[in-house]
Amino acid sequence: MRAVDLIRHKRDGGMLDPDDIREFVAGVTDGRWADYQVAAMLMAIAIRGLTLEETVALTDAMIASGATLDLSDAGGRPGVPVDKHSTGGVGDKASLVLAPLAAACGAVVPMMSGRGLGHTGGTLDKLEAIPGFRTDLSLAEARRVLDRVGCVLIGQTAEIAPADRRLYALRDVTGTVESIPLICASILSKKIAEGIGALVLDVKVGRGAFMATRDEARRLGEWLIGVAGRHGVVAEAVLTPMDAPLGRAVGNANEVVEALETLKGRGPADLEALSVRLAAMMLRLAGLEGDDAAAEARVRAALESGRGLETFRAIVEAQGGDPRVIDDCDRLPRAALVADVTAGVPGVVQALDAATIGRAAVVLGAGRDRVDDRVRPGVGLEVLAPIGTAVGAGDAVLRLTADDAARLEAAVRLVTGAIRVGPGAPAPVPTVLESLRPPALAG
Amino acid sequence: MRAVDLIRHKRDGGMLDPDDIREFVAGVTDGRWADYQVAAMLMAIAIRGLTLEETVALTDAMIASGATLDLSDAGGRPGVPVDKHSTGGVGDKASLVLAPLAAACGAVVPMMSGRGLGHTGGTLDKLEAIPGFRTDLSLAEARRVLDRVGCVLIGQTAEIAPADRRLYALRDVTGTVESIPLICASILSKKIAEGIGALVLDVKVGRGAFMATRDEARRLGEWLIGVAGRHGVVAEAVLTPMDAPLGRAVGNANEVVEALETLKGRGPADLEALSVRLAAMMLRLAGLEGDDAAAEARVRAALESGRGLETFRAIVEAQGGDPRVIDDCDRLPRAALVADVTAGVPGVVQALDAATIGRAAVVLGAGRDRVDDRVRPGVGLEVLAPIGTAVGAGDAVLRLTADDAARLEAAVRLVTGAIRVGPGAPAPVPTVLESLRPPALAG
Repeated sequence: MRAVDLIRHKRDGGMLDPDDIREFVAGVTDGRWADYQVAAMLMAIAIRGLTLEETVALTDAMIASGATLDLSDAGGRPGVPVDKHSTGGVGDKASLVLAPLAAACGAVVPMMSGRGLGHTGGTLDKLEAIPGFRTDLSLAEARRVLDRVGCVLIGQTAEIAPADRRLYALRDVTGTVESIPLICASILSKKIAEGIGALVLDVKVGRGAFMATRDEARRLGEWLIGVAGRHGVVAEAVLTPMDAPLGRAVGNANEVVEALETLKGRGPADLEALSVRLAAMMLRLAGLEGDDAAAEARVRAALESGRGLETFRAIVEAQGGDPRVIDDCDRLPRAALVADVTAGVPGVVQALDAATIGRAAVVLGAGRDRVDDRVRPGVGLEVLAPIGTAVGAGDAVLRLTADDAARLEAAVRLVTGAIRVGPGAPAPVPTVLESLRPPALAG
Repeated sequence: MRAVDLIRHKRDGGMLDPDDIREFVAGVTDGRWADYQVAAMLMAIAIRGLTLEETVALTDAMIASGATLDLSDAGGRPGVPVDKHSTGGVGDKASLVLAPLAAACGAVVPMMSGRGLGHTGGTLDKLEAIPGFRTDLSLAEARRVLDRVGCVLIGQTAEIAPADRRLYALRDVTGTVESIPLICASILSKKIAEGIGALVLDVKVGRGAFMATRDEARRLGEWLIGVAGRHGVVAEAVLTPMDAPLGRAVGNANEVVEALETLKGRGPADLEALSVRLAAMMLRLAGLEGDDAAAEARVRAALESGRGLETFRAIVEAQGGDPRVIDDCDRLPRAALVADVTAGVPGVVQALDAATIGRAAVVLGAGRDRVDDRVRPGVGLEVLAPIGTAVGAGDAVLRLTADDAARLEAAVRLVTGAIRVGPGAPAPVPTVLESLRPPALAG
């Protein structure tokens, strides 16, 4: 009856001590707690909350539920291993750009990513658009790639934080996703188990993001920084806008193309700016550069020299992907049906609603509504007229690519409402809205 | 995704409309909602609560999940069908006394009872101590007994409120038992489905009861009255003390013996007083008497004439039990091992802790810790020296009967702490602490 006692205690707003939390996570991991008991505890936590201490203990217990990587001497490279996490957006392929850039600058980047769910995309789905690319490496394989290339791009292995896998699956179907302590423990247990010492957090804010307001996003960022700090991981966060898609491509293969274009120096300005900014933060937190200006110069040099692109090629080769896609993007899948959506009225593009465009991408098959949906790598959307572009009524603003006429039609109908055209120039969108640092380092 | 949307709405403190609640209960009944989703919703309800309107809708939907009895012309008897519900106590066999008494006075009493769980006993377990007695009648069988005898004593059939069966089982293992709206809906859905028009509620208060304080008990009583009223059922409640066992017997067969003794006019005063009081309330609410004094006189006459006992005999016969137990209690099972617990010090018995005595009864095997435990009918406890009795140090206060030496030893050890002996006469225990009526009838 220990499970019921702990559930009742949290139901009544009580604090769980580290032993209680270890009992919970052990029960989740070994199955002693039934799904309905885990669900009841998750709901009690979602409503009553967890203190920072409880969240630290939960993260600890979730890390301890599985294996961890020891990267203290990764390939003899200097600096502490560093990763970046985004809370999820539409068209957010920044990881594909910044991870090879940071590694090209000497950082050790053991990046574990997730799959898309709902209207936001997932890095794993994008990588798997590359023929042969394996994201399901074992920890031993990941370690070998990391030693050789300085970067590895993998999914959550069965060995890492198994408690998180069960909790995450249950949260998705029990209405307990929106809980800052549960989000913190889920993100950080996986990241910390990778063996990192530093973490850059990209907390997206806006209609296309998980956090709709800046206050919520700031709160999540502060919690993530606080819990990471308690585990000896130096974290910093930036709040970045997610009202419109990042870059121009939304999908999987087409986002890989856009990431490659960016690594070749001809990507969209917003994606390049964000990727360079985040990579520079990674270098500074890894201890490879003392300040942002120097770090950013180093990242730009890696971008301009093509060393970022070569590191991406090395990652693709090391993880079983076809490296010919780097130079020949036509080797990536691309669906055959195409439809353009026009402005409808003349004027200037004022807004492109990321949430609606993300939903349209799911309708096309680029994302998934349920964890077990299969993603279609060659479908997606392209922004032909970004915000600020002057258009005529008949000018195409969005181009949709599909492999199914019914899906294409439904997505076109949906996405028409995402475009807003009006008079005058819209306000420019900043790369970063706000930066958050650990309290001790602030000011 | 409808289930998740509804769960999230309640999680955030929102109101569920009747359609939402019907969707929930339909999902519970037909299995479309998974156990973990039902558990998450139950926890959200346990913490956020339900309004009276929501509780009425939940009760409605739970009634509609199964069959209902139509008792509008039950055997041609006058008055509205009436039942009594107790929230559960230790030694509470009042149903076995008052149901035949009320029926002997002309009331129609379709009584559906539960089994014991934890330290409180259950009427079904007691009845099943009578050899052959069947509590698992179908609704059609129950209807025939009711027409013939005016009273039937059954368990929740598979046909009645199937949603409640699943919810109750899940609440027990997810820490969501203690929720007044959920308790109300569970009790009333079953009672109202029986076809009653009136209900007497015995809300126990004290250390041996589910509600430890009078405020909590009053709140539950008021909610039960309010929700019943919204379904056209006139309900009244009494708050009654449950710090010490009711009567002298705690167990199953021994409680049947005590109920029979009471129907024969020689039962313990507290049990007789409560049974007569509740039966009189039933007659008044059924419309068979205009006031409590007349109703109580009518019940006393049925008791003294032996008509209550004869009705009990008729029920036993109609439900397949051996009617010879009525006159020959030795035909009831009785375990062979006996141990007495003495006062230890001389003085007056001040308290007999019902919670501890109830726990000891479970240890002996008279009750159950888990829904699927089997009950041993012949074991139990007897109070030899009730509260107020002057005792010497070596005088026996409690007698335990067991069929297993280890259980007997454990129960003796446990129950020794339940006896408090001291100087002076303890305050007398009232039959009823407080009466609650529907607002419109109050004053």
